[in-house]
Amino acid sequence: MTHRIDCLQYANWSEKIFRQMREGGVDAVHVTIAYHENFRETVQNIEQWNRWFEQFPELIFQGRIGADVRRAKTEGRTAIFFGFQNPSPIEDDIGLVEIVHTLGARFMQLSYNNQSLLATGCYEAQDPGLTRMGREVIDEMNRVGLVVDMSHSADRSTLEAIEHSARPIAITHANPAFWVPARRNKPDDVIRALAETGGMLGFSLYPHHLKGKSDCTLQSFCEMVAQTAEMVGPEVLGIGSDLCQDHPDSVVDWMRMGRWTKKVDYGEGSAAAPGFPDMPTWFTDNRDFSNVEAGLRSVGFDAAEVAGIMGENWLRFFDASFGPAREVREARAAE
Amino acid sequence: MTHRIDCLQYANWSEKIFRQMREGGVDAVHVTIAYHENFRETVQNIEQWNRWFEQFPELIFQGRIGADVRRAKTEGRTAIFFGFQNPSPIEDDIGLVEIVHTLGARFMQLSYNNQSLLATGCYEAQDPGLTRMGREVIDEMNRVGLVVDMSHSADRSTLEAIEHSARPIAITHANPAFWVPARRNKPDDVIRALAETGGMLGFSLYPHHLKGKSDCTLQSFCEMVAQTAEMVGPEVLGIGSDLCQDHPDSVVDWMRMGRWTKKVDYGEGSAAAPGFPDMPTWFTDNRDFSNVEAGLRSVGFDAAEVAGIMGENWLRFFDASFGPAREVREARAAE
Repeated sequence: MTHRIDCLQYANWSEKIFRQMREGGVDAVHVTIAYHENFRETVQNIEQWNRWFEQFPELIFQGRIGADVRRAKTEGRTAIFFGFQNPSPIEDDIGLVEIVHTLGARFMQLSYNNQSLLATGCYEAQDPGLTRMGREVIDEMNRVGLVVDMSHSADRSTLEAIEHSARPIAITHANPAFWVPARRNKPDDVIRALAETGGMLGFSLYPHHLKGKSDCTLQSFCEMVAQTAEMVGPEVLGIGSDLCQDHPDSVVDWMRMGRWTKKVDYGEGSAAAPGFPDMPTWFTDNRDFSNVEAGLRSVGFDAAEVAGIMGENWLRFFDASFGPAREVREARAAE
Repeated sequence: MTHRIDCLQYANWSEKIFRQMREGGVDAVHVTIAYHENFRETVQNIEQWNRWFEQFPELIFQGRIGADVRRAKTEGRTAIFFGFQNPSPIEDDIGLVEIVHTLGARFMQLSYNNQSLLATGCYEAQDPGLTRMGREVIDEMNRVGLVVDMSHSADRSTLEAIEHSARPIAITHANPAFWVPARRNKPDDVIRALAETGGMLGFSLYPHHLKGKSDCTLQSFCEMVAQTAEMVGPEVLGIGSDLCQDHPDSVVDWMRMGRWTKKVDYGEGSAAAPGFPDMPTWFTDNRDFSNVEAGLRSVGFDAAEVAGIMGENWLRFFDASFGPAREVREARAAE
């Protein structure tokens, strides 16, 4: 039995989308619950998720550990894992790392495009690397089992996070820059350093990260995956689709501008194309993962490799990453 | 094997006190982590507890379910269960009920001396009973497994909470008014209604609730317990010592006055005796539970009854109360 995991989505959640997850056989989704929200606002977003868990128990439930993905498969539901694209939910308080982990957070980006209290974002001109607080927070994230995610961080900060973290980190949603040198895509040295430490790369399907953007072909995408697998092996690769379904364009404004500027910032867009881009025709919602799966087969991956990229690799990473460091050590010793 | 549980303490926590818990063979303590704190302040108090759990893992750990009391006994540690003496941590937001439960809260008083958004406190002149929000919040507490505690509430509100709650409630720390008619002690009809619905009464050792205050004798206390057992049976009785150890008197000011008044309120004290009262000589800290145990034997309780009052009754209540209503129903059906 294999499991299908999407390690990044941020949709305008609804019963329709939860049903599409089931139709697409998606056993687990890492959902973004904060871009720029402070702690209290993040808690409010969790409250909203608690309502959905109460309202649609036959479709979704909150995932906390890898075993919840297996349970989801068995029960025909989707396990929802929380993550933050910014450390704003922990504000300036390291004690909040354990609090948000207790509330279910499993991934936290150390920065989102801009400089944060912890690390530098990929849109800053200068990247001085991890901050003093950044190192402390990584240690605390390691201790409790909150995964460091550097998807939107700058390269030096990312390399330093990989080196400083005692546990493997993740880039949940980005592509290699060798394919298309988008600001959010990652150079070879970052991908290699990530893979060498057991970290995971989730391939993004967000058009701004794709060659040809919305017109990107499934063939081109899958050949890029194959080329990455040749570079670092298929075991550290997964999907983090970055699906931003059903949102009005005001939401991409919030993602890009939060409260940090009074001007307009187009981020990966432009004045001519300021809104959400159209998704490629072969991946528009959760029902399209079988297209990606077929595409991976067609470029030469064997069944086990495809299963790995579609979810088993993330599942192995979830198993190793979400518990307290002490418990993971003890479980390994007992094996 | 029997278990010793104290269902209410609010001390100036320290390694010394945690060691005294171990010396006293106390397997579990319900600790107050909020009097007037709002949500964010309560989270800060949890952060402080997380530090203690990290610092003293050989002495204490966070308790979440009844089984943690058994685990504490086996491992020679004390399980710490969080509770609030006021609903201030949930502010005006019913969604915070599940959030604080996820963070470990297991008891919440609906009011503390004054009127709250939910119910009336025992110092108000008028008690109109449960509010609209009070009923909603009780339903939500029932759903997630957060116990309604009416220790500091007024009688009509308490009777209505007993009636409205679908699950047994608690008065974690108070004594019967028939023994001494202190403002915080409870009349027979409240105690009977509580017991008839499977609720628990925890006897307080706080001098203002004792006959003769600090001079109260162990004999008098234990005779009162025996008389209460005659009234409602020994199975619904336990200890909630209300031990407030090592605090400066500024803390009792905070407990009494919070931020609700600019004047001085002496609560159960007086201008002549404004501070914390001296504990009775036979119960000054966690090492003195054996005195209470011996006292209960001497007034005629048999070994099983004493074990029940010293902890087994609370443990049975913990087992039934801290999980989601659905899971408790399923576990009962499976028995």
